[in-house]
Amino acid sequence: MKTVKVEEPFKLIIEEMEIPQIRSPKDVLVKVKRVGICGSDRHIYHGTNPLAILPRIIGHEVAGEVFEVGKDVTSVKRGDHVVVEPIRYCGKCYACRKGVPNVCESLSVFGVHEDGGLREWFVLPERQLHTVDPNLSWDEAVLAEPYTIGAQAVYRGNVKEGDTVLIQGAGPIGICILKLAKLHHAKVMVSDINSEKLSFAKENGADVIVDVSQKDVLKAVDLWTKGEGANVVIDAVCLPQTFELSLQAASVAGNVVVLGFDNKASAISQLPITQKQLTIAGSRLQTYQFPKIVKLLNDGKLRENGLITHRFSLKKVQEAFTFIDEHPDQVKKAIIVFD
Amino acid sequence: MKTVKVEEPFKLIIEEMEIPQIRSPKDVLVKVKRVGICGSDRHIYHGTNPLAILPRIIGHEVAGEVFEVGKDVTSVKRGDHVVVEPIRYCGKCYACRKGVPNVCESLSVFGVHEDGGLREWFVLPERQLHTVDPNLSWDEAVLAEPYTIGAQAVYRGNVKEGDTVLIQGAGPIGICILKLAKLHHAKVMVSDINSEKLSFAKENGADVIVDVSQKDVLKAVDLWTKGEGANVVIDAVCLPQTFELSLQAASVAGNVVVLGFDNKASAISQLPITQKQLTIAGSRLQTYQFPKIVKLLNDGKLRENGLITHRFSLKKVQEAFTFIDEHPDQVKKAIIVFD
Repeated sequence: MKTVKVEEPFKLIIEEMEIPQIRSPKDVLVKVKRVGICGSDRHIYHGTNPLAILPRIIGHEVAGEVFEVGKDVTSVKRGDHVVVEPIRYCGKCYACRKGVPNVCESLSVFGVHEDGGLREWFVLPERQLHTVDPNLSWDEAVLAEPYTIGAQAVYRGNVKEGDTVLIQGAGPIGICILKLAKLHHAKVMVSDINSEKLSFAKENGADVIVDVSQKDVLKAVDLWTKGEGANVVIDAVCLPQTFELSLQAASVAGNVVVLGFDNKASAISQLPITQKQLTIAGSRLQTYQFPKIVKLLNDGKLRENGLITHRFSLKKVQEAFTFIDEHPDQVKKAIIVFD
Repeated sequence: MKTVKVEEPFKLIIEEMEIPQIRSPKDVLVKVKRVGICGSDRHIYHGTNPLAILPRIIGHEVAGEVFEVGKDVTSVKRGDHVVVEPIRYCGKCYACRKGVPNVCESLSVFGVHEDGGLREWFVLPERQLHTVDPNLSWDEAVLAEPYTIGAQAVYRGNVKEGDTVLIQGAGPIGICILKLAKLHHAKVMVSDINSEKLSFAKENGADVIVDVSQKDVLKAVDLWTKGEGANVVIDAVCLPQTFELSLQAASVAGNVVVLGFDNKASAISQLPITQKQLTIAGSRLQTYQFPKIVKLLNDGKLRENGLITHRFSLKKVQEAFTFIDEHPDQVKKAIIVFD
């Protein structure tokens, strides 16, 4: 079978390997149909993700068809359409016991810490697979994982019906967060510097959009919320200054969600945190969001609606990564199509 | 009656005023028995609390005896021993609707935004009074309010049985937090620069104490938690560097509680927040903690145990404030005793 490896920074190779085999009675062999390309795949490709040791088969946004199951597998069967839950955890450490396995001390992410889905076949234990409706197109199914990231941010921000939510950034994650926040019946403002991305946010349910190259976000929030501030601010831009701005934009009793891995410091004082009794919540990967997202996908409540802008075949994977690097403003979500 | 006013910074005056009268059918007239002196009273006294406009009758840690009740009052009666819940709120704004009236947009704190309890008599609506067991000594009762601050910090930190909790600061609020954390069956480390305060923390239930003038807190936490980090870090020191240290000391899925009003910036990057999926929670005043604290007091589960180190009569109130300023290391909690 063909596998795609990041051999060294900026170099992808397509390598022939044996089709993997079921080794444990809970294992499942899956034929890959679609793999989405995410920012973190690009970080590995650029050699800037310290968690991924090269060479690495990348890809953690994966949809495929079950081909063979181990003898103790009960939740999926041959022919099922599945999406991959990319996290593997110990179930015993403090984080796992607390129900937060996404920060398990032995966390292993498919396609990051271990080889992932950018290959024709893979084997995973059944608990990392979720069956989707076979009538769902593969293009819809492959978005399950990014939707779970959006769902986690909305969960960590404790978004409630009627809340005013400011989402900073209208990239693919911002759009996934937006879709989930709207399913929570929140009122959503999206800010970005790119007017085309903002228009897309508007098409996908944003109540208000703010072009920060033209307008002051804080003033826009103030006007929109009649001086209250945004009840939830989710920062999908992840720059030091957008983190600082999040605290300023939040209302009393507000929630601020942080998704960034930037090590550069923001200037954050205790005053607004205590005075407004804010809650600042990190949001990493996801916990237990797949069943909810799969149901929303199956029920037609989440639709791709133009989020996938580019499709590449497996053999054009290098072209895909190069294209995204060269045209970041043109690409929303690019996927690799297998067959 | 005698009232104590901060007339201007560093100047307290004792002024004769009429005993206040019940004006609303829900009002209660209370004869004051004890008033605790808190850091925020001292900020008003020093002229450094922008929320208090001088002259102001200070005092928000108040215990007294009901003398007269309005015709619609049902929860207290003449002779009852009561403690004051010092916050008044609108009940309609976003914070109030969310159950967080401590950050109500019209918040008024007794003794801060409005005249408080450092006087022989006051009138408040019944909903700001909580009856305590008449067998409880006044010295125990007057600590109800600082315990609610400790309870709020423990609530905001979501402290659970078995959690490792680092409390930075062994002052009166640190001690109140410690007592409440121990009632949640947490394992508690307390850090401070004052060895006498640390010994007192040890007497009051701290499992481990760390003298930061001698030892590195992060190393101590690391050793104590076997590398896991503290599940909850509550910063009752409230300096820019202790806030920064809180994030470093926290475990994965950890909670950091911020109580400070410092406007000086800390250098906080997104990396630890996302990577460890931390939750940073401001804790201001308290919400709905009084009934719980009153029950713990009545049940003898919270005991003063030497926390009150100094008692002054009303006429020596200026002496009290001067003494605390001059001997900050000798005073844990000072109170004004009425008779």
